[in-house]
Amino acid sequence: MRVVVPYDVREPKTRLSTVLSAAERAAFARAMLDDVLAAVRAAGGDPELLATGPVDAPVPTTVDRRPLTRAVNAVLAAADGPVAVVMADLALATPAALRRLFETDGEVVLVPGRGGGTNALVARHPAFRVDYHGVSYRDHRRAAREAGADVATVDSYWLSTDVDDPADLPEVLLHGDGAARTWLQDAGFELSVEEGRVGIARDD
Amino acid sequence: MRVVVPYDVREPKTRLSTVLSAAERAAFARAMLDDVLAAVRAAGGDPELLATGPVDAPVPTTVDRRPLTRAVNAVLAAADGPVAVVMADLALATPAALRRLFETDGEVVLVPGRGGGTNALVARHPAFRVDYHGVSYRDHRRAAREAGADVATVDSYWLSTDVDDPADLPEVLLHGDGAARTWLQDAGFELSVEEGRVGIARDD
Repeated sequence: MRVVVPYDVREPKTRLSTVLSAAERAAFARAMLDDVLAAVRAAGGDPELLATGPVDAPVPTTVDRRPLTRAVNAVLAAADGPVAVVMADLALATPAALRRLFETDGEVVLVPGRGGGTNALVARHPAFRVDYHGVSYRDHRRAAREAGADVATVDSYWLSTDVDDPADLPEVLLHGDGAARTWLQDAGFELSVEEGRVGIARDD
Repeated sequence: MRVVVPYDVREPKTRLSTVLSAAERAAFARAMLDDVLAAVRAAGGDPELLATGPVDAPVPTTVDRRPLTRAVNAVLAAADGPVAVVMADLALATPAALRRLFETDGEVVLVPGRGGGTNALVARHPAFRVDYHGVSYRDHRRAAREAGADVATVDSYWLSTDVDDPADLPEVLLHGDGAARTWLQDAGFELSVEEGRVGIARDD
């Protein structure tokens, strides 16, 4: 399976700016990307990057400076077979979960992200196009139906958890086992429990 | 599979008090419970309630006023076979996801909840006991290992999404298809999208 991983090299992970500097956000985003690429490869996928600028990575890379939706749709329009699109911030993605994604039947297969996004998809229908703006999971279901494609959803917590917000970092510390978790630990983050709720603490 | 659903009839869903009154929280909690019981039954499970007080429900009910951990452990200690424990606020639980839970091999099978909790489990080992305080998913893994039980995890977004916080309500509106979603809609809630992030709005 061809697996396109969009990657923003310019201002990644701005919602983490309350807890990470710009340089730290770039390094953490790269650690998550490395985890995603490794998981895709372990699941039997052929990963390639769709990046907003030059990036030093050991996989085929296309640079497209346009917004995410237009860049992905250019890939879909040019494809002559199934294409998976997997976000670069799925720090919990496992080979087993990705294998379920790749093997699920459907002309359009969607993985919802928490908050209405679309964390991953497989497009096997030539007319399907993405629109990542707004509540993209709902919009992608509608777009698939309008294209005449049958739609399936993959039920995976590991794939539905994208890491955008400080509230997502405990999930990486709890469930991650790759570079992203190691990066957070090396940066001094650890789980904290206050009033029965899990958060993060950072040593000084 | 015997499926115990703990249910708090006293002060359910206090974290939703910023958006729902006490009476509304009780009604919404009951709608979620009804969805969970229906999904358990459709998955081939035999649901029973473990409630903190009398409750009018069409399933066998045990009233135990002790804290959750002690009440569940009393059930586990008295059980003479496998027991599943499924939380009552899994408004997105589907029969397919629950079937995966029931059919996953393992002396202790865990479903993590967002934030470190344990949303569902199957106990097939006589020595395993729960402790829902703190980061229970991590603690349950440790407790299972210490009991000599082999542990498995079920990767399901529908089961890992418990509905505690206002930030969880968009998930019910987006993905639910039962009584809880209908309740929210009837109460005037709808999805809102601001600055690319999904939230909820309520009509006046």
